[in-house]
Amino acid sequence: MVKYADRMEKMEGSAIRELLKLTAKPEIISFAGGMPAPELFPTEQMEQAANKVMEESGQKAMQYSTTEGWPRLREQIAERMGAKNHIETDADHILVTSGSQQGLDYSGRLFLNKGDIVLCESPSYLGALNAFKTNEPEFIEVPTDEDGLIPEELEKILAREDRVRMIYVIPDFQNPTGRTWPLERRHAFMDIINKYEIPVIEDNPYGELRYEGEYLPALKSLDTKGLVIFLGTFSKILAPGYRLGWICADDEILANYNKLAQAAALQASTISQMETAAWIDMFDLDAHVAEIRKVYGHRRQVMLDTMEKTFPAGVKWTHPDGGLFLWVTLPENLKAQDVYMKSLEKNVAFVPGDTFFPNGGVYNCFRMNYSCMPDDKIIEGITALADVIKSCL
Amino acid sequence: MVKYADRMEKMEGSAIRELLKLTAKPEIISFAGGMPAPELFPTEQMEQAANKVMEESGQKAMQYSTTEGWPRLREQIAERMGAKNHIETDADHILVTSGSQQGLDYSGRLFLNKGDIVLCESPSYLGALNAFKTNEPEFIEVPTDEDGLIPEELEKILAREDRVRMIYVIPDFQNPTGRTWPLERRHAFMDIINKYEIPVIEDNPYGELRYEGEYLPALKSLDTKGLVIFLGTFSKILAPGYRLGWICADDEILANYNKLAQAAALQASTISQMETAAWIDMFDLDAHVAEIRKVYGHRRQVMLDTMEKTFPAGVKWTHPDGGLFLWVTLPENLKAQDVYMKSLEKNVAFVPGDTFFPNGGVYNCFRMNYSCMPDDKIIEGITALADVIKSCL
Repeated sequence: MVKYADRMEKMEGSAIRELLKLTAKPEIISFAGGMPAPELFPTEQMEQAANKVMEESGQKAMQYSTTEGWPRLREQIAERMGAKNHIETDADHILVTSGSQQGLDYSGRLFLNKGDIVLCESPSYLGALNAFKTNEPEFIEVPTDEDGLIPEELEKILAREDRVRMIYVIPDFQNPTGRTWPLERRHAFMDIINKYEIPVIEDNPYGELRYEGEYLPALKSLDTKGLVIFLGTFSKILAPGYRLGWICADDEILANYNKLAQAAALQASTISQMETAAWIDMFDLDAHVAEIRKVYGHRRQVMLDTMEKTFPAGVKWTHPDGGLFLWVTLPENLKAQDVYMKSLEKNVAFVPGDTFFPNGGVYNCFRMNYSCMPDDKIIEGITALADVIKSCL
Repeated sequence: MVKYADRMEKMEGSAIRELLKLTAKPEIISFAGGMPAPELFPTEQMEQAANKVMEESGQKAMQYSTTEGWPRLREQIAERMGAKNHIETDADHILVTSGSQQGLDYSGRLFLNKGDIVLCESPSYLGALNAFKTNEPEFIEVPTDEDGLIPEELEKILAREDRVRMIYVIPDFQNPTGRTWPLERRHAFMDIINKYEIPVIEDNPYGELRYEGEYLPALKSLDTKGLVIFLGTFSKILAPGYRLGWICADDEILANYNKLAQAAALQASTISQMETAAWIDMFDLDAHVAEIRKVYGHRRQVMLDTMEKTFPAGVKWTHPDGGLFLWVTLPENLKAQDVYMKSLEKNVAFVPGDTFFPNGGVYNCFRMNYSCMPDDKIIEGITALADVIKSCL
């Protein structure tokens, strides 16, 4: 009989990926995914970049390249991290991955033995939780409030538990809540981290997509002991179809990520890397991101305004300053899963929130994405959803 | 203090990848890598395919797609496995991976707990061994002869050990030896597998690259109990830069691979998949493979002929019917690592063989690649290498 490894008992198909299949019907108004708006992809420019690569270095583009990543792309990433995240780094401290998900997977495998403890915000990104689960860790959820992770609660846990091997956080426009940590919290967090010396995975897929307020320094930019590992991605600022993300970490840690990458996948696609690097050199990523921010920022506002007008009393939701998601909290006695089933009958989809809590137990929340639907669909979908919620109360 | 997971103690940087960096100097004649010859890449045709994809479906190409893989590509893969490997399958039984290395990684994670036993040919592909090592298994090497894995030896091990959870084999033009299992061995192997019901990873990156003799049925085509998992790749028949491989397995096993893929990387590059699918529809993969076989078959012959002329008595080597590699056995008292150091001084590189034995202990063998150097360099390099070996005797 075929016998699977123990880790497979904990693995479920990603609820979101399964759900996205259900919601692929064209009549569905989906607030479920976290996809970028495809109408903003620079397809014609990318075709030009692809032609340039194939004509000037087609043989290199189709060949194996190094595990570390395409040199020009690593330079561009390092420069951008300096400009956007105030992280002083260089190409030697960047490892290109096949999307940020791969960076999450490598992170779990690098730090977690079976039974080790990983800390995360409560709730947290379920794709990361799933990646970590392959190592059979225990999760402890760090309590959060409207300003994200609560440093005092983190310290309580670290003072009590000596099996914590990794802390996973999304300080900017968190998935699923849309919350952002204020500057004081970042400093307080780093003080605690420096005291306990636990590696931190700072997942930052949305940091450039700010629609209001001031940009805040990345944890990695405040890191004096080399404890923070920064994960970035092109999926939300350019396109996810190339599967390109990156890991920025200090020497020894990055060398260990590199060993895992060699064993797990050799390298990210050479052609994806060279085309992306060529596009960045030929066109204007800043202008492109500005366009994305304008569109998503507007859609966020339409969603917030429509919720304000239509959602019944007793329902609360976050007001994110950026990113792709907001988080709705229903009255305690209402289950998001029940609302979801009824909502789907009205052709409106979202993600029930229970899967974002690794230890479960919270059933009255759900995640909404606003980047992928045009204004009229947002208004129509939110209005229908408001009716469904009212009918459940 | 940062503490790494136990698995990292077993992880070494891939000897080959590190060595490829050393041998990147243009004056080096390298028989070390396993790269396809870049001059055969259809770069102009691929540019046409890329343009077609970007013009007709650029938004889809730049977007997320399903974990399973791009539907048209899965169809093409299933058809090709029928035509080339006599494996009756369909698109629903194909999972596209980011190169075959990712399929190897998922395989180890699917079947191996810490301390479980994985069987492999002695010697075996070190990239696979490295991937499996992340799960901290024990390796037992199944003895081989000129016809590959010896079924009787496999049965002895299986009769004795009850912790065997997976068997990894490369029946066609094996890496590193170039050996191919004859038909009777394939049947004998499957009889044993069916008796013990252990999952088999059949790694088949080179199967289409046969230069003489008859094509032999894949193990998967002889599999009546759904125990064989077939790993294929476009890296050697088209180009490795797209990072596209695939897993073909029966329903339940493939569903479990899919769960791992969702957690580990979400999906292979959409754009790589769509461009490759478009190229296959627009051009002639069979004709392209025929061209590759012609060139590599010729280079293999040049290497074999030059070895025959120049290598001293006491040195033996395999005569592969296909693939990219042959395997040299020095007299017992000679260490391949010593020959390697002297050879590198003469600007000739290869891979010392000890790393291909997971449990070590064999030092007088090395692997030679013949796909990547033109005739004159092969003659020059082999002649120089022969001199080095003579000087070591």
